[in-house]
Amino acid sequence: MASIFGNNLKISIFGQSHAPAVGVVMDGLPAGEPVDLAALGAFLKRRAPGQNPWSTPRKESDEPEILSGLAGGVTCGAPLTAVIRNTDTRSADYRELRDVPRPGHADYTAQVKFGGFQDTAGGGHFSARLTAPLCVAGGICLQLLARRGISVLAHLYAAGGVMDTPFDPVAVSGETLSALRGRAFPTLSEAAGQAMCQRIEAAKQAGDSVGGIVECAVTGVPAGVGEPIFDGMENRIAQIVFGIPAVKGIEFGAGFAAAGYTGSENNDAFYMDEGRVKARTNRHGGILGGITSGMPIIFRAAFKPTPSIAREQQSVSLSEGRDVTLNVKGRHDPCVAVRAVPVVEAAAAIAVYDALLDKEGHV
Amino acid sequence: MASIFGNNLKISIFGQSHAPAVGVVMDGLPAGEPVDLAALGAFLKRRAPGQNPWSTPRKESDEPEILSGLAGGVTCGAPLTAVIRNTDTRSADYRELRDVPRPGHADYTAQVKFGGFQDTAGGGHFSARLTAPLCVAGGICLQLLARRGISVLAHLYAAGGVMDTPFDPVAVSGETLSALRGRAFPTLSEAAGQAMCQRIEAAKQAGDSVGGIVECAVTGVPAGVGEPIFDGMENRIAQIVFGIPAVKGIEFGAGFAAAGYTGSENNDAFYMDEGRVKARTNRHGGILGGITSGMPIIFRAAFKPTPSIAREQQSVSLSEGRDVTLNVKGRHDPCVAVRAVPVVEAAAAIAVYDALLDKEGHV
Amino acid sequence: MASIFGNNLKISIFGQSHAPAVGVVMDGLPAGEPVDLAALGAFLKRRAPGQNPWSTPRKESDEPEILSGLAGGVTCGAPLTAVIRNTDTRSADYRELRDVPRPGHADYTAQVKFGGFQDTAGGGHFSARLTAPLCVAGGICLQLLARRGISVLAHLYAAGGVMDTPFDPVAVSGETLSALRGRAFPTLSEAAGQAMCQRIEAAKQAGDSVGGIVECAVTGVPAGVGEPIFDGMENRIAQIVFGIPAVKGIEFGAGFAAAGYTGSENNDAFYMDEGRVKARTNRHGGILGGITSGMPIIFRAAFKPTPSIAREQQSVSLSEGRDVTLNVKGRHDPCVAVRAVPVVEAAAAIAVYDALLDKEGHV
Amino acid sequence: MASIFGNNLKISIFGQSHAPAVGVVMDGLPAGEPVDLAALGAFLKRRAPGQNPWSTPRKESDEPEILSGLAGGVTCGAPLTAVIRNTDTRSADYRELRDVPRPGHADYTAQVKFGGFQDTAGGGHFSARLTAPLCVAGGICLQLLARRGISVLAHLYAAGGVMDTPFDPVAVSGETLSALRGRAFPTLSEAAGQAMCQRIEAAKQAGDSVGGIVECAVTGVPAGVGEPIFDGMENRIAQIVFGIPAVKGIEFGAGFAAAGYTGSENNDAFYMDEGRVKARTNRHGGILGGITSGMPIIFRAAFKPTPSIAREQQSVSLSEGRDVTLNVKGRHDPCVAVRAVPVVEAAAAIAVYDALLDKEGHV
Repeated sequence: MASIFGNNLKISIFGQSHAPAVGVVMDGLPAGEPVDLAALGAFLKRRAPGQNPWSTPRKESDEPEILSGLAGGVTCGAPLTAVIRNTDTRSADYRELRDVPRPGHADYTAQVKFGGFQDTAGGGHFSARLTAPLCVAGGICLQLLARRGISVLAHLYAAGGVMDTPFDPVAVSGETLSALRGRAFPTLSEAAGQAMCQRIEAAKQAGDSVGGIVECAVTGVPAGVGEPIFDGMENRIAQIVFGIPAVKGIEFGAGFAAAGYTGSENNDAFYMDEGRVKARTNRHGGILGGITSGMPIIFRAAFKPTPSIAREQQSVSLSEGRDVTLNVKGRHDPCVAVRAVPVVEAAAAIAVYDALLDKEGHV
Repeated sequence: MASIFGNNLKISIFGQSHAPAVGVVMDGLPAGEPVDLAALGAFLKRRAPGQNPWSTPRKESDEPEILSGLAGGVTCGAPLTAVIRNTDTRSADYRELRDVPRPGHADYTAQVKFGGFQDTAGGGHFSARLTAPLCVAGGICLQLLARRGISVLAHLYAAGGVMDTPFDPVAVSGETLSALRGRAFPTLSEAAGQAMCQRIEAAKQAGDSVGGIVECAVTGVPAGVGEPIFDGMENRIAQIVFGIPAVKGIEFGAGFAAAGYTGSENNDAFYMDEGRVKARTNRHGGILGGITSGMPIIFRAAFKPTPSIAREQQSVSLSEGRDVTLNVKGRHDPCVAVRAVPVVEAAAAIAVYDALLDKEGHV
Repeated sequence: MASIFGNNLKISIFGQSHAPAVGVVMDGLPAGEPVDLAALGAFLKRRAPGQNPWSTPRKESDEPEILSGLAGGVTCGAPLTAVIRNTDTRSADYRELRDVPRPGHADYTAQVKFGGFQDTAGGGHFSARLTAPLCVAGGICLQLLARRGISVLAHLYAAGGVMDTPFDPVAVSGETLSALRGRAFPTLSEAAGQAMCQRIEAAKQAGDSVGGIVECAVTGVPAGVGEPIFDGMENRIAQIVFGIPAVKGIEFGAGFAAAGYTGSENNDAFYMDEGRVKARTNRHGGILGGITSGMPIIFRAAFKPTPSIAREQQSVSLSEGRDVTLNVKGRHDPCVAVRAVPVVEAAAAIAVYDALLDKEGHV
Repeated sequence: MASIFGNNLKISIFGQSHAPAVGVVMDGLPAGEPVDLAALGAFLKRRAPGQNPWSTPRKESDEPEILSGLAGGVTCGAPLTAVIRNTDTRSADYRELRDVPRPGHADYTAQVKFGGFQDTAGGGHFSARLTAPLCVAGGICLQLLARRGISVLAHLYAAGGVMDTPFDPVAVSGETLSALRGRAFPTLSEAAGQAMCQRIEAAKQAGDSVGGIVECAVTGVPAGVGEPIFDGMENRIAQIVFGIPAVKGIEFGAGFAAAGYTGSENNDAFYMDEGRVKARTNRHGGILGGITSGMPIIFRAAFKPTPSIAREQQSVSLSEGRDVTLNVKGRHDPCVAVRAVPVVEAAAAIAVYDALLDKEGHV
């Protein structure tokens, strides 16, 4: 099952970092939906490496080829498949890592699971490169959601200990969206963004890396989407977001802070607004009982610092069964959370669109 | 799909709070596994209401009847079904709530989703009563895991702002387990437990409630369990844990704190310990790339405060389309996180056992 | 997975022949659908044992208890669970069969699969008793389909070599339905029914049994239902129908006969009939490319003769590793296909309703 | 879901006849299995067009490119993806068919399902071209099965009313296999093969087509594979085989003939053979209660005649709402069953291998 997600729209992610390609099959996409490839390309560019000084210097065109699923630029009901060729691969960088697993990476756990047969080059199937096809699928879902009046918007809420302004959970506005889309660095506060950049640059200079938090808002989702118990919106968003490398936590609405509140502080009062039920506050993050309330869906995902750092680290030689020191080579972002911002949007878009299809029917 | 969880062992939860019964079907349980019903009963008792002064005075025997799946007390390969009758139901308490949704509950979202046909009595399918069959399934998985040398252990890490001692993530010992199992109140530190009790009691007296955090450790899981991308251990545990009512966040290992660390702080160094690969620290929470490392799995789930409080709250009349004030009746725990401790263990046990079956085969 | 069927409406069948109960969970049933329990009881009675001289003398009330999923007699969106208690069980009949597997039964294959832990009493999970909960689920689906103008109707097309009149595949009429519903024995031709009865009675007198074929028609299904490749209507109906014990073959429309036709004989010409596209013949059985054409769905399922016969048979002692002769005890129908007629209707109803939900959305 | 098959090994088929490519993702393939691309190519050649005078003159290299899932020619645990480019496409042949559906094809049903947005060129996602990626997946499974001592072997059992010799269901030998593999035309009896060829040629000359039956044997499968009720070997094989275009029926062992037998004729007596349980006859087709018995799995699939024939046919103009006559253009096999022989082997191999993974674990 592993690399397949979704109940109605099944997303099947494939590829390894240094295989001929990475890609995605989307099975269950309704027929008759135009796909704007230029808009998709623009979305993918936000994730692509080489957009800022700290991101990995690996250059990839990241241009997807659509192999199936479209007829005249419109979905035809057959599975949509997109592949992105891997071109700028330097597998030699990774050869010695089969024996000496990198701390914080999946090298050791994959070695045990796959009995040494895993593809180690560039992290193989565990590489952040696999977020490119996730963004293809998510980018297409974003277009379908937009047609239904639903927007998905994320920003870098924290990086290296520097905090951005949080979203207003009751009123994430279109203005916020426009402002954020225009930013070179994905923060609401430009000052916070500059401070983060300095913090990331300092870490890079020190041969180190920093973690971060991405906050995401989904607006325009009608009330009544999601299912009880195991297929609620929180379950589904969590399942896909933990599919993004380096995510170690997720919270909805007030999240962990709610654990410190009293009920009278945490409950969101309902009121009528021009015939519609709304909540005056949004500590529930737009989800109650797994089902959307019509308020914005708000969640935050915690990213650990990039485990590949330029410093000497302690590890083991699996073949020799002894402790060794390790110097990781390769090209790496000092803060994966920066480029993860559109990836979180993509993941949220897929989960929300899949849940909408519970109601619409997936044909 | 909604109320079904698992890839190999499919757990299907059914029931409403005031329906004739709640229960669970476990499809995919291997044949030949003895089920100790007395031990299961003891586990269920930890979740049952009425165990301490703050828990809901609703009395339920919570004794499951096994309808199928056993032959001579041993699993026979057919689906195992357990039902728990609902006996002490007072549906009259809930009649007026169909029109006026309770803040913080699923009343409004279920109303929209199910078009007013949802069972409102006692919260229906959204009630915490549904955690009883989850505990039946989890209690059986705990027995199967114990036979494989795997323990699952949770404690109340925080309640009403009071913190317990955290687990030692590198060495959650059998002694910790024994100590915790003997406690009337599920904290590692008895002093912290007493402070929490006072805080909860105070909230109750004030007609209010408090939130909390449950921390869970799973020890003895071999390295190599879990699958890449969407079916990693984090994805699976998150999917099931968000199936517990009131959970608003989950984090693994260092979790949200990792977002503030540098890579050199966060990476866990590997070393050889008598021929086995171990990590000196466990900020990765026993999971790298979705796959277990052999270190204890550590995670924390945030519970919001019980939304049913004795204070007047603001809501709406759906039929009249106007704002109203609401006084919630019914019997409720002032801190759901207390009784959630064994529920989190149950959920973790199901997810881990299901993942183990990826390797063992589910027959 | 085993005992779970469906993409949108998940049917989970549980129970063993001599366990406390058999039953079914239906997860994904839309809210707001009234369930007529009296009509359901009448449908179940058609399958129940003891309806005619040849059926097993085992007496079961077969009355389902609805444990969940209804509120005021109407589906509430939560999983609907029904259990049927097993009361008239004589497990002693089966004790010696654990060692000596019955020819034509699953005794040996279950022994190998479940390592000897399977429940052998009455055939355990492999018993035709498990068709009772299938009929509960199917009986409910039949009511939901009827509300959408869809009828499901089966008859005994062959038994012991005697053939009934086939359905008119282009025009299975309401009159046919009414006539068939009034029959004590489920054939279109009363003369064929009498001949079959004589053939079955003769086999019974000879300590033997006979096979049969059930033909089923589903009328009123709109065009456009079903999905390409693996989730077409044929795939789905076949998957569920092979879940009925003793089925060894299935064919749609002209089926195996089509293999002997030429294309010009087999193709069904389209024509316009008052603005609707129809086919003049229906050798395609209402399905083209896995998708319904709007013509009646027609299929036939072949049932092998009841393997439990009163004659001496050759088998082996598994414990002693030698050939032995076997005399099967217990109470058995001489022709399972007779009582299978409503079971086939139930199975078809579930598959068709599940496929309809692809379009309607399963909420 | 549509185009995804499997419980452990998930096969996701994509592509349209005239899209840039067709292909398959195999998710869940165990790591460490060498894939022999030359052997795979030889297997694919059996299905490829242009192998005999009657098959469609469309030329396709059918050479798959492996985009992911291998490292050094060995499976690495990541999904294996193969694409086959579509090169010799003549979409102009199909333009007029959007309005006038071909009898016996999915044109009309797809039109209704996908609202006119389906890809009509070459049959789109419904084309027999999609059996190429099915054969890639099946060809790989055949290699994995062979390593476990399991062979899958099919022959053309009937075509145009001419019958081949059936398999000996008790002893399908390696000699049979070798003989069959050496044949230019896939029959056991060369004389029958010649008669079929003449019959097919005659149909072609008459602008017509013929149907056929493919019989398949799977030998070497251990007893105990498959699951009760909905995931038995019959259910799974039926589900995938109905995914092959033109299949209208399937039967296992004696199949429809069993419906005419008595129990004493149909039951297969068990006996001990050098410490192993065997059956003297194999009317059960190697499957009892959905689970393998250790005897060869035997099944037959009925293929309707190719619906595309050179004769004038009656259809409708969907846009004008009136009856029209139709002359189908394009390049078509006069008997799809001939090239379907390896496709049936591929489908059986996938279903059997997926079921084996229930026991082995799918990692």
